[in-house]
Amino acid sequence: MRMRKKKWVTPFLENENKYIIKKRQPLELGPKTVLEIGMGMGDFITQSAKNNPKIDYIGFEKVDLCVAHAVLKAQELELDNLRIIMDDAKNVDEYFDHNVDTLVLLFSDPWPKKRQYKRRLTYRDFIQKYEKILKDEGEIVFKSDNRQLFEFTLKEFSHFDFYLLDLSLDLELEENSPISNYEKRFREMGNPIYYAHFKKRVDKKTI
Amino acid sequence: MRMRKKKWVTPFLENENKYIIKKRQPLELGPKTVLEIGMGMGDFITQSAKNNPKIDYIGFEKVDLCVAHAVLKAQELELDNLRIIMDDAKNVDEYFDHNVDTLVLLFSDPWPKKRQYKRRLTYRDFIQKYEKILKDEGEIVFKSDNRQLFEFTLKEFSHFDFYLLDLSLDLELEENSPISNYEKRFREMGNPIYYAHFKKRVDKKTI
Repeated sequence: MRMRKKKWVTPFLENENKYIIKKRQPLELGPKTVLEIGMGMGDFITQSAKNNPKIDYIGFEKVDLCVAHAVLKAQELELDNLRIIMDDAKNVDEYFDHNVDTLVLLFSDPWPKKRQYKRRLTYRDFIQKYEKILKDEGEIVFKSDNRQLFEFTLKEFSHFDFYLLDLSLDLELEENSPISNYEKRFREMGNPIYYAHFKKRVDKKTI
Repeated sequence: MRMRKKKWVTPFLENENKYIIKKRQPLELGPKTVLEIGMGMGDFITQSAKNNPKIDYIGFEKVDLCVAHAVLKAQELELDNLRIIMDDAKNVDEYFDHNVDTLVLLFSDPWPKKRQYKRRLTYRDFIQKYEKILKDEGEIVFKSDNRQLFEFTLKEFSHFDFYLLDLSLDLELEENSPISNYEKRFREMGNPIYYAHFKKRVDKKTI
């Protein structure tokens, strides 16, 4: 999400010490960790963290204004199980190593132009990193309103050892499941939400 | 496709000796073979055979009335590169053994009820047979107008070593590509055509 710089953001982030992880180094994690790359303003991850206090949530986002808004939400909800990394997704494997249970990719930037495909968060170079950061039984939840990104994602994943736990070309909204304002807006417009839930295929005995 | 029995069909098929393969045994094949399972009345396969005289086409279909209509089309087009197998798809591996280049599955019966899923032509037991009949570099072309069957198909294939050469949630019709009346009708109604083009992942070096 691209936004205009706002003056309060930089000092706010510099003075914030509870939520923002400030060093690029392997993290200490609890028994169960959910990572969202491209968390945006943090609607999904802050609500999820509130609903599931026993799970560690990590939000990953490079846009400082988004991070600042997510921190504000975390502060308001007094969350103790959320941390935020402000960095480029290409560095994700410097924070995690086979210790993430679930990676969440929600409404990622589709980078629709052909020459931009390497920036998509489901491009093969990223999937290789996701293989490394996930536990053996790790999962990836992908949602998008963008058909081309969904098609691209399924194609890219088909080269890797992930299988589809679930897939929908028009995901129904479950009651009480936290969704972003972005998703809400798309649903209100009547657009289908594409959904893929991948799981690592480790020993090839998935069926 | 279920249809009422017609009197002319049985004697017509019994007396037909050019197109119909009458023994369940391994086939002699040329260098390039395309197999369509569930060819229906043979619109696609007869047109394809006409357009590509150097490729061997085999149509597989269990409904005798459909087979009879496909034979009539083959006779009219004076095809020399088409043969037809009237059998249940579960026996496909008794005719082929790592010698099919492309398997085509077009608008297969979706068997929409939950308890019927094992009859779908992309159920895992069928995919295991397809792995056996295809060459190492073999491909599978799948088209459907049925969203649930498409979702099911992608999920089932994700457990096997196939990758997606191509995928579309709304396949555009290429000029001069042969399509069945069934597909034509669906397109005229404005329905999207779902498309998946799989290729065997043999040495894992697909990218």
